[in-house]
Amino acid sequence: MSSSPKLRVGLLGATGTVGQRFILLLSGHPNFEISVLGASSSSAGKAYKDAVAGRWKQVKEIPREVKDVVVGDCSVDRFKQCDVVFSGLDSGPAAEYEHVFRAAELRVFSNAKNYRQDPLCPLIVPLVNPSHLEMVRTQQASLGLQKGFIVTNANCSTTGLVIPLAALEQKFGPLELVIASTMQAISGAGYPGVSAFDVHDNVVPFISGEEEKMEQEAAKILGHVQGGRFVNAGIKMSAHCNRVPVIDGHTETVSVRFLNRPPPDAEQVKEALRQYTTEAQQLKCHSAPERAIIVHEEPDRPQPRLDRDAQNGAGVNVGRIRQCPVFDIKFVVLSNNVMIGAATSSVINAEIALAKGYLS
Amino acid sequence: MSSSPKLRVGLLGATGTVGQRFILLLSGHPNFEISVLGASSSSAGKAYKDAVAGRWKQVKEIPREVKDVVVGDCSVDRFKQCDVVFSGLDSGPAAEYEHVFRAAELRVFSNAKNYRQDPLCPLIVPLVNPSHLEMVRTQQASLGLQKGFIVTNANCSTTGLVIPLAALEQKFGPLELVIASTMQAISGAGYPGVSAFDVHDNVVPFISGEEEKMEQEAAKILGHVQGGRFVNAGIKMSAHCNRVPVIDGHTETVSVRFLNRPPPDAEQVKEALRQYTTEAQQLKCHSAPERAIIVHEEPDRPQPRLDRDAQNGAGVNVGRIRQCPVFDIKFVVLSNNVMIGAATSSVINAEIALAKGYLS
Amino acid sequence: MSSSPKLRVGLLGATGTVGQRFILLLSGHPNFEISVLGASSSSAGKAYKDAVAGRWKQVKEIPREVKDVVVGDCSVDRFKQCDVVFSGLDSGPAAEYEHVFRAAELRVFSNAKNYRQDPLCPLIVPLVNPSHLEMVRTQQASLGLQKGFIVTNANCSTTGLVIPLAALEQKFGPLELVIASTMQAISGAGYPGVSAFDVHDNVVPFISGEEEKMEQEAAKILGHVQGGRFVNAGIKMSAHCNRVPVIDGHTETVSVRFLNRPPPDAEQVKEALRQYTTEAQQLKCHSAPERAIIVHEEPDRPQPRLDRDAQNGAGVNVGRIRQCPVFDIKFVVLSNNVMIGAATSSVINAEIALAKGYLS
Amino acid sequence: MSSSPKLRVGLLGATGTVGQRFILLLSGHPNFEISVLGASSSSAGKAYKDAVAGRWKQVKEIPREVKDVVVGDCSVDRFKQCDVVFSGLDSGPAAEYEHVFRAAELRVFSNAKNYRQDPLCPLIVPLVNPSHLEMVRTQQASLGLQKGFIVTNANCSTTGLVIPLAALEQKFGPLELVIASTMQAISGAGYPGVSAFDVHDNVVPFISGEEEKMEQEAAKILGHVQGGRFVNAGIKMSAHCNRVPVIDGHTETVSVRFLNRPPPDAEQVKEALRQYTTEAQQLKCHSAPERAIIVHEEPDRPQPRLDRDAQNGAGVNVGRIRQCPVFDIKFVVLSNNVMIGAATSSVINAEIALAKGYLS
Repeated sequence: MSSSPKLRVGLLGATGTVGQRFILLLSGHPNFEISVLGASSSSAGKAYKDAVAGRWKQVKEIPREVKDVVVGDCSVDRFKQCDVVFSGLDSGPAAEYEHVFRAAELRVFSNAKNYRQDPLCPLIVPLVNPSHLEMVRTQQASLGLQKGFIVTNANCSTTGLVIPLAALEQKFGPLELVIASTMQAISGAGYPGVSAFDVHDNVVPFISGEEEKMEQEAAKILGHVQGGRFVNAGIKMSAHCNRVPVIDGHTETVSVRFLNRPPPDAEQVKEALRQYTTEAQQLKCHSAPERAIIVHEEPDRPQPRLDRDAQNGAGVNVGRIRQCPVFDIKFVVLSNNVMIGAATSSVINAEIALAKGYLS
Repeated sequence: MSSSPKLRVGLLGATGTVGQRFILLLSGHPNFEISVLGASSSSAGKAYKDAVAGRWKQVKEIPREVKDVVVGDCSVDRFKQCDVVFSGLDSGPAAEYEHVFRAAELRVFSNAKNYRQDPLCPLIVPLVNPSHLEMVRTQQASLGLQKGFIVTNANCSTTGLVIPLAALEQKFGPLELVIASTMQAISGAGYPGVSAFDVHDNVVPFISGEEEKMEQEAAKILGHVQGGRFVNAGIKMSAHCNRVPVIDGHTETVSVRFLNRPPPDAEQVKEALRQYTTEAQQLKCHSAPERAIIVHEEPDRPQPRLDRDAQNGAGVNVGRIRQCPVFDIKFVVLSNNVMIGAATSSVINAEIALAKGYLS
Repeated sequence: MSSSPKLRVGLLGATGTVGQRFILLLSGHPNFEISVLGASSSSAGKAYKDAVAGRWKQVKEIPREVKDVVVGDCSVDRFKQCDVVFSGLDSGPAAEYEHVFRAAELRVFSNAKNYRQDPLCPLIVPLVNPSHLEMVRTQQASLGLQKGFIVTNANCSTTGLVIPLAALEQKFGPLELVIASTMQAISGAGYPGVSAFDVHDNVVPFISGEEEKMEQEAAKILGHVQGGRFVNAGIKMSAHCNRVPVIDGHTETVSVRFLNRPPPDAEQVKEALRQYTTEAQQLKCHSAPERAIIVHEEPDRPQPRLDRDAQNGAGVNVGRIRQCPVFDIKFVVLSNNVMIGAATSSVINAEIALAKGYLS
Repeated sequence: MSSSPKLRVGLLGATGTVGQRFILLLSGHPNFEISVLGASSSSAGKAYKDAVAGRWKQVKEIPREVKDVVVGDCSVDRFKQCDVVFSGLDSGPAAEYEHVFRAAELRVFSNAKNYRQDPLCPLIVPLVNPSHLEMVRTQQASLGLQKGFIVTNANCSTTGLVIPLAALEQKFGPLELVIASTMQAISGAGYPGVSAFDVHDNVVPFISGEEEKMEQEAAKILGHVQGGRFVNAGIKMSAHCNRVPVIDGHTETVSVRFLNRPPPDAEQVKEALRQYTTEAQQLKCHSAPERAIIVHEEPDRPQPRLDRDAQNGAGVNVGRIRQCPVFDIKFVVLSNNVMIGAATSSVINAEIALAKGYLS
């Protein structure tokens, strides 16, 4: 694939936290080439490096080829020539722009929450349900479009959780009940995001709207498409969401009950998670991790500081797989909220769409 | 009660983290007076202030009346005149000394884990099951003792949890299922305890033996005494234990299912927790909190940094009481692990024992 | 003094971080009584507890007597009956309101930076230069006022530093050179203040305007009043200001060179700091610390977490007093930036003013 | 050079914190090949991956080629065939083994403090004084050795500081006075090292022996070799050392006074630091950074979290270069204490020694 000419990429919300991650992921990408950068009017007209001056909060430097690209506003005319548009917009501007881009026949891969529960828009975790991409055709037919569509990816805390859940369902059949408690990183709230005064030496046991997102998104992602409609999975989930003083990496403790009896034991679960591979790997997508799930045997892993950067944050880490005295199995999952939990998901989704012919 | 002569108190493990808390709690106490201090042989012979030099890690200064008390070893002869002995020993030395003290007719209130599951020793959370003190008489009869006994208090993560559970059971009948996930403070591991390299910017999703303690201790504490035996509660519990970078205060997310149907709703639960009062309050124990449970209505409380010191850490804080999509009710509980979770429990237990005549 | 009727206090900026500290300090104060609360128009008309809902970030609860006081705006008419007005305003609104209040014959004790370098306004650290209060008379005469004046207190990082410097100058004569490097707490930036993303697992070696404030304020505070004018001290100071992940308490490393030769040795310095007492203590001001400076002999103290709350944060802590290979003496000073570094200074300044007759 | 056969490397203290860094740096190295691993007797006989089980605290995984290498003790016989020996030993075992290795004609590059002030052993910061390697010949002659020697590298807090100081001296002549205040990372203390209870939400303004090391080591490193002897630089330095809650990266604030008058201004200093190149770069040493010093123009950089991993931690970062009101110039330097501050220095020292013929 890398011998084809690269697709021209537009980026909405290029200067924000998620936008900066898109910039790093797309730099040197074999299939995509950053072509147009859009941001708020305060950045318009500035070179990218000036637009993010004092706000570039990445450990890596701004890629050379992007530094002097002039940022513009998000008017659709500027993006007309783009083959793909990634949106790192917050939900406010996303509501304003994304549907306009789609109406202008642009393909939008969005990290915003706005269209996640839309009956026409796929909500795709690339290591779980890329098959939902087929709804793109229904979406286009319904709206009378040839090329334009919106594909969304999930909330960061949902993403980390549904990957092992999908692996379990693939091997052992439907899950009936899930109770999950999260310990979410500071970076999940963007920048400036969480006040240090609130989270330093502290736990904040509340993230507005987060528990509802997890409970609702999981049902759609783990569901299926039938007759041009999304059919939710029957799984019942309860989420407890907490913010903890960790810079990157969402840790979640999970107890699950399977529908089929008898349920698998811990060793069978470990084996199933280890063996789980997905279309993203089979299609050899550039940004996909080698292993969807790294299973840890050490008693005290995964840990965010030590494991969040494995595979450049594109897979998830699962450990402490053991019997649950109340349900069947319990475990810990760690995912990199700014990578597979955000920009990396959008990019792999686009890579899969490219491989499966949705971008031609 | 405060007009009676004070009881003479011996303190085992006086220089350690828990011992330092005992020192602060007993300073100026109306019923108790520190009389003999025991520690390891390396401290023996030193004035208390010298024995803890470089290791006194409390925000408050060493109480004046204790500074120059000479610390000795833990040989039982030194404690013969004590009316009460508090033990802040680790389980190793606790195994060596506590039974010797009991055999010498001393009353031992222990924070160590050794005798918590002993069929003769009460495991008492003072805001939950002080009625179990009656087993002291069975213990004495079984061992042929007149005065000596061992009473234990619970592990810090258990203590915070069982207080609201007991309040719910008192009002709504037995709980059937509980899934809890903890975010435990650094101080729970003593000193030097957790390496900063392990917990800084990190979550460690494992604390050795902790989940088992929670699951087993809760059953005994919430159970009852019948015919001179402990009868465990039928509650099934699953605990996920995590260490987070917070200095003091264990936060726990909890989902519960009641045995009786229909279960109470969130408002009824709030009301029940608010109204919960215990024998410790009724007996006007000096160290008991005014309110066993502070119920928070703000969406993002309790938080360890802001709420751990309410009522000098002697009560617990509960918030985010809401319906659970999987069980009946979910909530967050915060307890001060070094206060009600450790030394404060021992001291209130002794205060109750005094009020009920077990110390005469 | 406490038998006199209490003075009526107005509070500007009552809902902000500094305002909340004023509320706590003035609750139960023997001389002052909170009478009028002013805040921005968004808070006007609300009961105090509602105006700070979700923003009350203190470990202590809102004092009972203030909870239901209705907050108003900062229009001067509301404050006409006040004997004293404390201002916790940020510099923007301070510029708008403080001079109006003074013109209306109100006595304003301000924590804002606006008038610190004003040639008529005293800049007073209560444990250093309360004698500068005499400039209040010059200020009134110049402006044709009978009662109104503005007295300011210093920036938090300046306050902690000048207290030991003043003690040294009092005993050993003028200081010639000072190089100080600060490690300043998160709370120094107010709320929401510092983003957790910026300061977590990090040091930010820059606080806008802070180094200049320290260098300039110290010269005025350590100077004297002569002929109705402020005469700066001849001290030359260089400050390095850093933000570190600590919630409260500014730690500063300091090297000093005395003008007089030979300089004192470390033991003489310790003795001088220990013996330092100030007018605030002599006047028995309610909020003044018993000891202006606590001198630590332990090799690793003071530390912010352990020492910031000594004496309710009203004094400073100095330790590691030793010879400096480049200058004469070096040491570490720790001060509680939200107490003596902010509201406590204003309140003690007013207590001194009261005792010396400036409020009648 | 990389076409020559690789030199066989022995590693002392292979399982410790510094040893783990050596492992990572030497994996895939073009000149060196790990051949023999030595550790304490408790590790002897185990495969490396088992010897470090539960103690491998690196973000990167154990290199494949090392996982199954059997670790032995530190007896010199096991290392006889090594061309180079790196020592990551603590000072206790270093005192026992390093001189024995040298006597057995082994070349030892040590990170331990033991021989840093030895009149025959070079103390080399590779980006400062590799010319001191010539003393190896004197050392060998004095001790009657053909090949064996000990070369040391500096303490982590010294290393970060002397690199910009050397750049300044090279361009502007000798420095007369330096006052530096450090904010040092947790990892500087090894593992388990600092208790979380000590450093969480805290600053510890004391690191045993650290200030003396900085003051003494800088004089030797910035000095020169004359007539087979080390001649210390005339620089006078005062160091204030502090531990802060940062995982990696030592930040230091520095004020300097030049001997020559008039001194350079801030712009000249920036230019000199930017242009500073060293023998390590000229010899194209594999582990040397492209730029010895990265100069930051942003007002709030360098910061440890954002800048410590630039150039894999092999260079230093300097920012906030400005006039000092007391001395001439002040600035902030950040260095990665576990990389250039420890193992990376040893490795570059060996690379330079190889290039200059000291290893043949």
